[in-house]
Amino acid sequence: MRMRRKKNLDTRLEKCAAFSVAEPSLNKGKWREAFGRETGELHLEIGCGKGDFVVQMAKRSPDVMFVAVEKYQNVLLLALEKVMAEGLSNVLFIDADANTLADVFDKDEVDRIYLNFSDPWPPKKRHKRRLTHENYLSVYDRFLKDGGEIHQKTDNTGLFEFSLCSYSQFGYTLYDVTFDLHSTDFDNVMTEYERNFTEQGMKIYRCVARKGKK
Amino acid sequence: MRMRRKKNLDTRLEKCAAFSVAEPSLNKGKWREAFGRETGELHLEIGCGKGDFVVQMAKRSPDVMFVAVEKYQNVLLLALEKVMAEGLSNVLFIDADANTLADVFDKDEVDRIYLNFSDPWPPKKRHKRRLTHENYLSVYDRFLKDGGEIHQKTDNTGLFEFSLCSYSQFGYTLYDVTFDLHSTDFDNVMTEYERNFTEQGMKIYRCVARKGKK
Repeated sequence: MRMRRKKNLDTRLEKCAAFSVAEPSLNKGKWREAFGRETGELHLEIGCGKGDFVVQMAKRSPDVMFVAVEKYQNVLLLALEKVMAEGLSNVLFIDADANTLADVFDKDEVDRIYLNFSDPWPPKKRHKRRLTHENYLSVYDRFLKDGGEIHQKTDNTGLFEFSLCSYSQFGYTLYDVTFDLHSTDFDNVMTEYERNFTEQGMKIYRCVARKGKK
Repeated sequence: MRMRRKKNLDTRLEKCAAFSVAEPSLNKGKWREAFGRETGELHLEIGCGKGDFVVQMAKRSPDVMFVAVEKYQNVLLLALEKVMAEGLSNVLFIDADANTLADVFDKDEVDRIYLNFSDPWPPKKRHKRRLTHENYLSVYDRFLKDGGEIHQKTDNTGLFEFSLCSYSQFGYTLYDVTFDLHSTDFDNVMTEYERNFTEQGMKIYRCVARKGKK
């Protein structure tokens, strides 16, 4: 997602500094401490956009710690301001590329990964950039615990077909595959993108890929 | 598929007797001999309907032996008559229920299984009847060789979602998942059902599930 550089970006980011981690690799193996907690699940959203999803999830599950990753600072700012306005103590943001995340999280440190409406990178030569390409799955595998899950939503058919094969070929097991999420009874938290998209009558794909066998 | 009992069903079946195997379990472990061949791949279509698919596949791949299974005799007759009219030597038909097939084929005897437009059995309490339910996969697993594949096509969303999870949870690996087969460059052989369905502009799902890891 591209947008113009926000006015006073640096000043506004500064005000939300308590909710973002400037050097996330310093927290490697110590994320629960960073939240001031001893135990609890750690969930990671890769590409949180404007943060609607993670904010709602964090309010719904106060016992879970959420780390939200967004590499575009303009977008990250909007998410940060939402979390600050809500005064949530279980969300932290980091500004990182997905392929560096194994420097940020330790083995077995993450319980769940959310991939919501990731960039589909349509041309075949760009498929390596998809967040479900085996190169990325190899990165996540280094910090996702055994039995941990990747929860994916997308409206993009090509990306979803690709992802199902990619998870399966990587040795992850599929659950809850649906081609029309909003027709199911799943208690869904929508992203801002999803809300706009769904209002146009489009369908949303979702699946869960679990590390290890059932 | 239900239809009225064909006129002169028994007489007509009798005429095609050379193409059907009355006691298929007698061929267990000896199917290649039944075709008069020493080597070659053995492919199985479960639920061949009127036989358009298997006839075209058999003409296209004369080195492959095809066994086609259909439990409704009225439908089986039409398939048999097609194969007889074409004089094909690489297709044999059996009249059997899918859950009995491990009595018919020996360990590692089958290289590939085709499931084309299987009954979706929509109510949840009927999902056990789906040909991709783990109970059926357990049957096929007893005769499908390691590295062997199940090739599935369907127009039914619920069945396809279910099947993807079922294959994955059974430990099979997914390839070539597509939600719109006819938009791909796959060299597809259509079933009679598929042709009618596609003429109405509907999309066809397809996947390959491979036994064992990649």
